[in-house]
Amino acid sequence: MNDGSVERLLDQLREIVGVAHVLTDADAKAGYEVDWTGRFRGVSPAVVRPGSTAEVAAVVRACGEAGASVVTQGGNTGLVGGAVPAGGELVVSTRRLDWIGPVDAIGAQVSAGAGATLAAAQAQAAAAGLAVGIDLGARDSATVGGMVATNAAGLNYLRHGGMRRQLVGLQAVLANGEVIGRLDALAKDNTGYDLAGLLCGSEGTLAIVTAVRLQLVAPPRHLRTALAGVPDLRTAVLAVASLRDAGVVVEAAEAFLDEGMALVCRHLAVERPLPPSPAYLLVDWDGDVEALATTALGDALVADDPSRRAALWRFREAHTEAVNRAGVPHKLDVSVAPADLDALVAALRPLVAATAPGALLVVFGHVADGNLHVNVVGPPPDDDTIDDAILRLVAEMGGSISAEHGIGTAKRRWLSLVRPPAELAAMRAVKQALDPGGVLNPSVLF
Amino acid sequence: MNDGSVERLLDQLREIVGVAHVLTDADAKAGYEVDWTGRFRGVSPAVVRPGSTAEVAAVVRACGEAGASVVTQGGNTGLVGGAVPAGGELVVSTRRLDWIGPVDAIGAQVSAGAGATLAAAQAQAAAAGLAVGIDLGARDSATVGGMVATNAAGLNYLRHGGMRRQLVGLQAVLANGEVIGRLDALAKDNTGYDLAGLLCGSEGTLAIVTAVRLQLVAPPRHLRTALAGVPDLRTAVLAVASLRDAGVVVEAAEAFLDEGMALVCRHLAVERPLPPSPAYLLVDWDGDVEALATTALGDALVADDPSRRAALWRFREAHTEAVNRAGVPHKLDVSVAPADLDALVAALRPLVAATAPGALLVVFGHVADGNLHVNVVGPPPDDDTIDDAILRLVAEMGGSISAEHGIGTAKRRWLSLVRPPAELAAMRAVKQALDPGGVLNPSVLF
Repeated sequence: MNDGSVERLLDQLREIVGVAHVLTDADAKAGYEVDWTGRFRGVSPAVVRPGSTAEVAAVVRACGEAGASVVTQGGNTGLVGGAVPAGGELVVSTRRLDWIGPVDAIGAQVSAGAGATLAAAQAQAAAAGLAVGIDLGARDSATVGGMVATNAAGLNYLRHGGMRRQLVGLQAVLANGEVIGRLDALAKDNTGYDLAGLLCGSEGTLAIVTAVRLQLVAPPRHLRTALAGVPDLRTAVLAVASLRDAGVVVEAAEAFLDEGMALVCRHLAVERPLPPSPAYLLVDWDGDVEALATTALGDALVADDPSRRAALWRFREAHTEAVNRAGVPHKLDVSVAPADLDALVAALRPLVAATAPGALLVVFGHVADGNLHVNVVGPPPDDDTIDDAILRLVAEMGGSISAEHGIGTAKRRWLSLVRPPAELAAMRAVKQALDPGGVLNPSVLF
Repeated sequence: MNDGSVERLLDQLREIVGVAHVLTDADAKAGYEVDWTGRFRGVSPAVVRPGSTAEVAAVVRACGEAGASVVTQGGNTGLVGGAVPAGGELVVSTRRLDWIGPVDAIGAQVSAGAGATLAAAQAQAAAAGLAVGIDLGARDSATVGGMVATNAAGLNYLRHGGMRRQLVGLQAVLANGEVIGRLDALAKDNTGYDLAGLLCGSEGTLAIVTAVRLQLVAPPRHLRTALAGVPDLRTAVLAVASLRDAGVVVEAAEAFLDEGMALVCRHLAVERPLPPSPAYLLVDWDGDVEALATTALGDALVADDPSRRAALWRFREAHTEAVNRAGVPHKLDVSVAPADLDALVAALRPLVAATAPGALLVVFGHVADGNLHVNVVGPPPDDDTIDDAILRLVAEMGGSISAEHGIGTAKRRWLSLVRPPAELAAMRAVKQALDPGGVLNPSVLF
């Protein structure tokens, strides 16, 4: 687009959303042009902040007619550069779509605008004695629309699944400006393709989600936490499986290694809570203490009140800050079959030693999902040799190069490691069918 | 296709699957050309029974090159005519793909060929102390591949969701003959579009599912059943919601009306088990008897052993045979918001009285899902005036014209009542993108 046509488009957008909601000033745009990690940035002609689904539709239509592309941005908490204008796109911010409806107590559902934060949805659910099935560290910024677009997961994935599972319905604007979807209490509907499920996890490439209808869950009644040393990750995985087989409701199951425990204890300046062990399992369950009797976690520390639970969780949660303090980490979000976690760790150690001699390797993650967050501190931030080596290793093991975070712009070059040509062709065909003009997030995924 | 080109194609197919597995004899084909209800039928040049995914791929490729279309058929238990050759298609039967893999006890998963029956998958899971999250009356015939293609639901939907939720992965053959998907233990993967989820519920129009990977669940520990009279369906819905809010694990919740109870008692020649009541709730839960104290179901009959549980369930399950004995029913599978169930019943009564005077109306269903099976006995089987009236009523109430059974060929003419033009256009665009030649189930959905 030349400057004149950009100006004409911006005038149209000002008519649609109001002058105050088309940001072209460099300072006003700045926060939208870079992700929160500072790793991904772009320059956008303008940030457009529509206030309704109808305004989003009009914005998309105007951009499509002008041949302009857009990037949709929610809370800007993504980790793969999928929400910044990497290719000079207009930014469509959903943050003004932050309404939350009343909780439907019968169906245990709530509707919310795409720009409502997870924390706001959680508060609304809690006021009705219910809960959202997903929790994330970024809850105060992450928007429910962005969480649908990326199929967000988090700590309770083994209990309630990812965002796709919470989704009763959604409202979205297609690339042609048409509005699709529904936000009602219909629990069961088998009338054609599951477009909502397809949009979930499509990272803004097929539509702009403008509102969501979430299934809520009954909150845990008697949440307890145990922290135990285990000889390896397989033991942790088996302990969680035996709890499940005994009918225990496991809410979260995190594992980390002794290097991480040592780093965290130094960072927090506290003693180790347990004798050293090759690995540790942190498990939350809803039930009584006797549940642990079904496992090999006899020596576990157990907490059943919020402050003591938080104290145990601190050893897991402080991993991120302890790693960041050691340097700028390369963070890989990968998954393998849970039975293969030890093999992955065993392969990572020599690979990191060979590829990035002297680097610090810290691994933690959602053990029941086979999902490890691999952190490597040492190699320069802009050198992705180690990323490439780790993602290839994971792909060779039949794993996923992105368990939770998505592909965005950051992992496009590795997507073909895990999706065969026939699947990539099918994905491109769907993208071409629904967005032939490449209006929506053209720099993402492909 | 003229006779010569059909013969050339059949010769090719015989080379691919073996002479014994291309059925052209009228007697051999007969069972594949009509659905089990006898309502939907067609004539096919041949039934092809491939024995592997590779054979399915070769069959699809040969048909595509010859300009022939196929209908995929699993257990032929569908209710909307989606698996019979309504347009003279070749039938691809998946029944020889009936292998079942070992249960992965760590991940609680199992892989199975598309032609394995639900009962076979259930038996395999049970041998490992686990269960499939779905159960259906048609379990001995319904295949797991057909259940994925139709996103089957069943009695435990409120507990474990439909087939899409059980699906860890699948293998499928696209219209171009390419094989996509994965059958491994990966629990978490956010690398692009969820093609497996898209195929689930697409009724064979986008691909032929050849194998599935299912998530298994821990079976209930202490299953109990209660049957209670309730003044209306709203009371039943609220009782189930209060059980859920109290943390009780509800496994099934069925409701029916007094007309149904009276009909069933006459059919079974038994006394009413409870004083007459406008409606009844039958609920299965996993836990102790005290759970009921949280509800208004104080006078419920409670059973906690299999034979007494079966005796209570008989009052619900005998509805189908009691209705069939009264005549050939028009069966509608609809859903509304659970809060609207009484309003639906209140509207159905005068509508049936006006549209089909003297007809018998029997309504039962999955109350927590807002899913009613509406049976009308009286109007001639081939007159769909009453079907049309009921589906329009449901659509006007914001409900679904097919909660569980799908659209198939039977409900195509009503699909536009519930899917707006923008969604139908998106669905057609996806179909066109993945099956431009119309090879797969061309008579279904659209």
